[in-house]
Amino acid sequence: MTDDRSPAWGPVPRTRAHELVVQAIEDQIMSGALRVGDPLPPERELASRLEVSRAGVREAVRVLEGQGVLRARVGAGADAGTFVAALPDGALTRFLRLHVALANFPYADVIDARVILERSSARLAALHADEAGIAAIRATLETGADASLGHAAYNDADTAFHVAIAEASGNRLVASMTVAIRESLSARILVALQDYEGWEELVATLHQQHLELLDAIERHDADAAEELAERHIRFAETALTSA
Amino acid sequence: MTDDRSPAWGPVPRTRAHELVVQAIEDQIMSGALRVGDPLPPERELASRLEVSRAGVREAVRVLEGQGVLRARVGAGADAGTFVAALPDGALTRFLRLHVALANFPYADVIDARVILERSSARLAALHADEAGIAAIRATLETGADASLGHAAYNDADTAFHVAIAEASGNRLVASMTVAIRESLSARILVALQDYEGWEELVATLHQQHLELLDAIERHDADAAEELAERHIRFAETALTSA
Repeated sequence: MTDDRSPAWGPVPRTRAHELVVQAIEDQIMSGALRVGDPLPPERELASRLEVSRAGVREAVRVLEGQGVLRARVGAGADAGTFVAALPDGALTRFLRLHVALANFPYADVIDARVILERSSARLAALHADEAGIAAIRATLETGADASLGHAAYNDADTAFHVAIAEASGNRLVASMTVAIRESLSARILVALQDYEGWEELVATLHQQHLELLDAIERHDADAAEELAERHIRFAETALTSA
Repeated sequence: MTDDRSPAWGPVPRTRAHELVVQAIEDQIMSGALRVGDPLPPERELASRLEVSRAGVREAVRVLEGQGVLRARVGAGADAGTFVAALPDGALTRFLRLHVALANFPYADVIDARVILERSSARLAALHADEAGIAAIRATLETGADASLGHAAYNDADTAFHVAIAEASGNRLVASMTVAIRESLSARILVALQDYEGWEELVATLHQQHLELLDAIERHDADAAEELAERHIRFAETALTSA
């Protein structure tokens, strides 16, 4: 393929062209033909093969770089070019958080999804958490129990508690999804806490539930841990939305 | 803010600059200050406020457009500009699929996550699926039962079966996650099927399991449905990886 005439006159408009290129690259990744570390063909060759303009290829590469799927490496010879990258840690959390914030999903679906994932995280943590994992969960309770710290600090500590359980589960994909959903609800939960009259009492109850959940995880009681996780989330949800 | 001097000499390199802009826009969405349909400030104003170059703003906008977070509207006056968009359906599935395909997670974690989500999808489908949902699941079995169609067609039909159950669950977020994980495994499952000696028999067993799962969903037996979903996935997984 040495044909470098870019068919800028083609029937495909620019925006559509770069979307087609994104799709083509993703297809190669999904089929396993392109793996992390593999180079993309040179811009000119890719444009020719896909029969789109080089501008279309360039735009597609920029979009995928923005998502962390591709990475440009500057240099000379075989080391230079555009490569497939492992998505950075936290990319999924960031994406799902945005998705939920943009209200792409009904709120009730998000809560039910949260319950499913946090039940599983709590169960897995009860089965697999080591001393360090349990210490990390406990540490979030020591800083977070106190309503006198204010709403935002409490909300952060509560998030940290749920994140620590997810991370103690030993399953990074489940943890990513669990964390993403809890974080996507953070802004909304903060507002609800601020509006809640007598929130100190609510926080005391939630803290008690956190201690019971931690206790079940420490006892390696997986059934109790998953039940307590669901009960806690449903309780907080009902309290905060009916306030 | 009418200052339009773009500090191109700033201490922040270009790539970092556009990442900062992406972060700033996401922060506004997360806090609820920017909602679907809201316009972004004009490029010049945003560059000035964030103290980055206009090129940095432009690049950030393109990245977020590529993710479906922003959309450009051409026109005159207040109707033109860049707006916050609802992420398109399927965007999360697409992103999660890529995430898993890029091997960011241990394979066992992916399988366990799949079991958790498909158990939940099957349970929810048993509780909530209507006639149309059940008909959609059944339709995938009618085309997919036949090994004579070949490995790829069988794999597609199997994917369609699991997708139809997820969609019948009535929870779009759980469905998105379930579908993403099944689709991310598709290339790998296809190769395993092709390598499997006597795969016609395996397909017959899998088909029988599919029928039993559909039957439990139709009977609204949620406990049976979730158990059958897990047993089916674990069975297929063991058969295909030990082949």
